[in-house]
Amino acid sequence: MKKIISLHPIRGIIIHCNPPQILALTFLFFIVVGACLLKMPVATYTSITWLDAWFTATSAITVTGLVVVDTGSTYTLFGEIVIMFLMQIGGLGLMTFSVLILMMMRKKVGLRQRLLTQESLNLNQTSLGGLLRLVKLLFIFSITIEAIAFIFLAVKWVPAYGWADGLNYSLFHSISAFNNAGFSLWSDSLSQYVGDPLVNIIITGLFITGGLGFTVLVDIWDKKGFHRLSLHSKLMLVGTLVINVTALCILFVLEYSNPETIGNFSFVDKLWGSYFQAVTPRTAGFNSLDIAAMNESSILVTMLLMFIGAGSGSTGSGIKVTTFVVMLLATMSFLRGKNETTAFKRTIKSHVIVRALSIMMISISCIFIAIFMLTVTENAPFLTIAFEVISAFGTVGLSMGLTGDLTTLGKEVIMIMMFIGRIGPLTMAFVFAKKRESSIRYPEEDVFTG
Amino acid sequence: MKKIISLHPIRGIIIHCNPPQILALTFLFFIVVGACLLKMPVATYTSITWLDAWFTATSAITVTGLVVVDTGSTYTLFGEIVIMFLMQIGGLGLMTFSVLILMMMRKKVGLRQRLLTQESLNLNQTSLGGLLRLVKLLFIFSITIEAIAFIFLAVKWVPAYGWADGLNYSLFHSISAFNNAGFSLWSDSLSQYVGDPLVNIIITGLFITGGLGFTVLVDIWDKKGFHRLSLHSKLMLVGTLVINVTALCILFVLEYSNPETIGNFSFVDKLWGSYFQAVTPRTAGFNSLDIAAMNESSILVTMLLMFIGAGSGSTGSGIKVTTFVVMLLATMSFLRGKNETTAFKRTIKSHVIVRALSIMMISISCIFIAIFMLTVTENAPFLTIAFEVISAFGTVGLSMGLTGDLTTLGKEVIMIMMFIGRIGPLTMAFVFAKKRESSIRYPEEDVFTG
Ligand SMILES: [K+]
Ligand SMILES: [K+]
Repeated sequence: MKKIISLHPIRGIIIHCNPPQILALTFLFFIVVGACLLKMPVATYTSITWLDAWFTATSAITVTGLVVVDTGSTYTLFGEIVIMFLMQIGGLGLMTFSVLILMMMRKKVGLRQRLLTQESLNLNQTSLGGLLRLVKLLFIFSITIEAIAFIFLAVKWVPAYGWADGLNYSLFHSISAFNNAGFSLWSDSLSQYVGDPLVNIIITGLFITGGLGFTVLVDIWDKKGFHRLSLHSKLMLVGTLVINVTALCILFVLEYSNPETIGNFSFVDKLWGSYFQAVTPRTAGFNSLDIAAMNESSILVTMLLMFIGAGSGSTGSGIKVTTFVVMLLATMSFLRGKNETTAFKRTIKSHVIVRALSIMMISISCIFIAIFMLTVTENAPFLTIAFEVISAFGTVGLSMGLTGDLTTLGKEVIMIMMFIGRIGPLTMAFVFAKKRESSIRYPEEDVFTG
Repeated sequence: MKKIISLHPIRGIIIHCNPPQILALTFLFFIVVGACLLKMPVATYTSITWLDAWFTATSAITVTGLVVVDTGSTYTLFGEIVIMFLMQIGGLGLMTFSVLILMMMRKKVGLRQRLLTQESLNLNQTSLGGLLRLVKLLFIFSITIEAIAFIFLAVKWVPAYGWADGLNYSLFHSISAFNNAGFSLWSDSLSQYVGDPLVNIIITGLFITGGLGFTVLVDIWDKKGFHRLSLHSKLMLVGTLVINVTALCILFVLEYSNPETIGNFSFVDKLWGSYFQAVTPRTAGFNSLDIAAMNESSILVTMLLMFIGAGSGSTGSGIKVTTFVVMLLATMSFLRGKNETTAFKRTIKSHVIVRALSIMMISISCIFIAIFMLTVTENAPFLTIAFEVISAFGTVGLSMGLTGDLTTLGKEVIMIMMFIGRIGPLTMAFVFAKKRESSIRYPEEDVFTG
């Protein structure tokens, strides 16, 4: 974070910015541009307020999917294209764009990028060729996956809705799904396709793939074999699988006889409904069941899943699967009396554990403060408020129905939470933090905890 | 935890127990004895169920103070004396008794005690004289403090309630307060004394002192000067002060114009009410205001305070002030780009940070599971359930009114939470965990988190 970059053309504005600050400013820039475009008369059928345009742009660029106005019936094709671009920039672009910006300035890549490339690709940090290859791979992967999904969805939706609407629906939902944005052109999201195998498989396949993180995808592409993958990739893949299967089983049991969700469905449809609702909280945000109609216990599980989120450097947010897994592993090692935390015959360094703890603390603090503020500004049940805040922080986009009823202050709190959640609480903290060098070493002393 | 102790007289039952297991078994033993005594006809005016006797004994020995039957009107003097003994054993005894048991067996003291004595008293770990001195000090401190408080309260309550009741009230509440038990003989706890300076100062003085932890008290007694205190004592004192003052300011502002709490009080009474409600969640559990009538935002702050709790080896529970402070310090150091966490010119070892993280993870997991179970078994608002669970885990005893209405299963969940909360989540985990020695060292590999 020490490297100071001076951007020549707009030297006066963002001189002396560190990479996290550039990332945050880039997002702010696109939010402003997006809000202006969405406020244009050509973008909507009926006029929307500046706050709603602002909210929609923030929700789209942070790939959250919380909506204050119904996307399909409010925005024209132009408006929908703006939202598609914002989602693509916010999801696919988060990492790629920041790498590109730094490359264009022909400077050394920042810490974040260096870590990423070193860890999962073993590229030389100064190799421009290696970075170019990474970015090229990211684009090829993403466009290919989105294109394949687009074709499958079009095969289904063109016959149903005609060429114009069918193609539009297919493109919009494949971009929205791969980027974990969760925007849908139907007001009830994907509820009408709750038992449809094709839509279930394509949409969840898109957001699970996008949520693994590009480094994991590239690692799989390079290594072609589980045992040769990096520790990060192994933890991501196993973590994702275990969390998803566990969530599926829990939700299936809890909702089995709830008539407002899957209670009256056939056995197979019950499975599809539970599956979709188990994988969507991390952090896709589509829904095929009514969230508010679920049991409180299911909602609690969903909140935990939203908090955990997706992979580092992915199209999803949350504290990240690896953060959660590292903390679990550290706790288990400690209880077993081991001095070191290990996984897949590798030792996880103590600074990684402290980093995970820091992310957890910052995240919980942000969520706590936001919930606290909404309990003051909003007149809604506590669970509904907590759900909305965690959904915004994890850029999930699921809601128990509060979003549209939020007060102006409430909307602003949720917008800030989406922004922090997408930029990443750690990055956000680095935007304000200054590196302090200390050469003083103090003697160690134990503190009795717990 | 490796040392295996064989207790000669009842060798068959608790042979091969480690210290945490002995602690847990001791508590279970007193719960059984206490429940049997409270179920006796002589203990109550009207018969109570076994479940309620069981619940009261658990609540008393874990110094929680959650009640399913009103203490003052249900229990006779005999029943009240049983509760007093249970509170004294559960609070004062938690650490003292375990040291004593180990000493009586003339074995080396366990890890927990070794850490405590080493850290704050600099006693030689094999010195029986040093340990005896510690235990003697603990008893002298506790009895002296309780006696002084008893006299002050008696001066107030004997004229008001006559000799018999006045002395009973004074003794019961001074024991209940010092041990952070929170049991009161009045059905509305201390609400009638909300603006009374004497009761406010004596009761809060008792539970704050008890909640600092004996090691801190002995340290202050020995060192007589802040700068010469151990790091643990410094963090406890500063942490407690900062948390209490912050909580007082927040609650004062939030409740200032709430007519159901302090809204209609004079300015001074507003201050007393906020002060009491700011310090009681950690983890005394008396209340002078109606919890259920507070704003949701105040309740959220109270829940955080209950989660943090009191000091290690004190009469209070929770994750402990030092656990919270260590995590905060680690996060701040990390954000500042420092490799080490420091406080008061001392370095906090990384294994202390991992221990704090482990306590946090185990605690949150326990709380999450308990809330989850109660959302299934109980028909109550989410916030009420979450409040009850965190109150039980922190052995606080504050309630939004759910305790008496709990289902049988709900009562059992809350009893288990009180037990885990008092024994300590870490100790509880050690009861089941087995030490594994590993001589294999794996290469280090980074994982990208957040
Ligand atoms: K989303
Ligand atoms: K208590």
